[in-house]
Amino acid sequence: MLEIILIGSGNLACYFLDKLYSNEKLKLKGLYTRKKSFDCPKNLKLYKSINEIEKADLYIIAVSDKSIIEISKSLKVNSGCVVHTSGSIEMNVLNKFKNHGVIYPVQTISKKNKLNNDSFPFLIESNNSSSRKIIEDILNISKANYHYFSSEKRLITHLGAVISNNFVNHLNYFSKKILEEHNIDFNILKPLIKETTYKINKYNPIDVQTGPAIRNDISTIKKHQKLLSNSNFIETYNIISNSILKLYSDEKL
Amino acid sequence: MLEIILIGSGNLACYFLDKLYSNEKLKLKGLYTRKKSFDCPKNLKLYKSINEIEKADLYIIAVSDKSIIEISKSLKVNSGCVVHTSGSIEMNVLNKFKNHGVIYPVQTISKKNKLNNDSFPFLIESNNSSSRKIIEDILNISKANYHYFSSEKRLITHLGAVISNNFVNHLNYFSKKILEEHNIDFNILKPLIKETTYKINKYNPIDVQTGPAIRNDISTIKKHQKLLSNSNFIETYNIISNSILKLYSDEKL
Repeated sequence: MLEIILIGSGNLACYFLDKLYSNEKLKLKGLYTRKKSFDCPKNLKLYKSINEIEKADLYIIAVSDKSIIEISKSLKVNSGCVVHTSGSIEMNVLNKFKNHGVIYPVQTISKKNKLNNDSFPFLIESNNSSSRKIIEDILNISKANYHYFSSEKRLITHLGAVISNNFVNHLNYFSKKILEEHNIDFNILKPLIKETTYKINKYNPIDVQTGPAIRNDISTIKKHQKLLSNSNFIETYNIISNSILKLYSDEKL
Repeated sequence: MLEIILIGSGNLACYFLDKLYSNEKLKLKGLYTRKKSFDCPKNLKLYKSINEIEKADLYIIAVSDKSIIEISKSLKVNSGCVVHTSGSIEMNVLNKFKNHGVIYPVQTISKKNKLNNDSFPFLIESNNSSSRKIIEDILNISKANYHYFSSEKRLITHLGAVISNNFVNHLNYFSKKILEEHNIDFNILKPLIKETTYKINKYNPIDVQTGPAIRNDISTIKKHQKLLSNSNFIETYNIISNSILKLYSDEKL
């Protein structure tokens, strides 16, 4: 049975912990975290020091981007494959390990908010065929969907994920804030938000654009600008409206 | 039976046409459009001139914001209620009509792309109780969900709708474009996009923010900036990242 050791205790580490611990066909051997207290499941070994980490087939470093290099400096591994889980860090930061790679989930994962849908893709990378085999075997056993991507393509996908998730979420924060400042319940926009996603899933975003900027409706844009008081909101509103105006006027040329 | 006349032939006019024409409890009496050719359903009267428009209980002006005033100048109505359907135009532009109001759908509606979900809200407004009664009767017969909002509150909701739909759609255009420039299929992000919407529906956006900006991860932000070549994309990326950085660093104070 393939043996795995997990390093980390953040959002992503807890996701892997949950998935791997409950999989009867894989053996999650232990977990190491620099955190002083961690609520480890029964029967799972919690290593007190990085030097105590045992032999395993796969070591998953699921820590913040900033800590990957630091952790990999201290980690002593003779056999098995070491991976990190970052969207934006190159695989070769793990060069000191004979077998290494990456397992990056294209998903927004946080401990406090359970995922609604578990069928998202992982982007994998490996330095040789034996690393690749271990990574693929474990993802196949976990029934996960994965694609082999270079570090460069992974970084581009990560940029797309930041735009489509982090930025979209921030825009919705911004929209909720404006409504609530005027005692309007944000729920009024939820059917629209659902439809927006439905359309992005079904159509090309460039073909379903609506709103004042695409119609070159400067009068409505000016009315909106007057309602905005927060400088970040004003800048965001102007930049995106100008970008839409420019894109669709260029299109007409 | 309540009689309705529709003015317009754009996205929203076609939505109303479809809904009202198929409702057996309402009588869609006719349609007027300035378009030279319009594919009108059988049995529906197509007025050749605005002066031919007959008596009705409700006149729905579903034209672009720019044309509402022009249309209302030419429209002669002795009884019945006249409404427009704009999110950003004040009700009082229809002051010349004794009974007037607004029926604004909080939804992104286009002819070519059918709506996935019909249960969105309408924001209504009226200048007196008889206008309100006609509007409410028609929306009740249509089994539509509606809320009574002032012109100011409607404009704020419209601003929220622009941010949560038009801007979000544009961000996804931007993300798709970057991926496709590097031969990456945009489908890789679709499970993430679904999850983003699910979280916005269930949680407060401020509590589910993830990504490099909230972690103050300047190194990843710099990597992303290097990948961007389009000046609109660079500006948008920087403004939203800075807005997230600022929001969450302020939060910590």
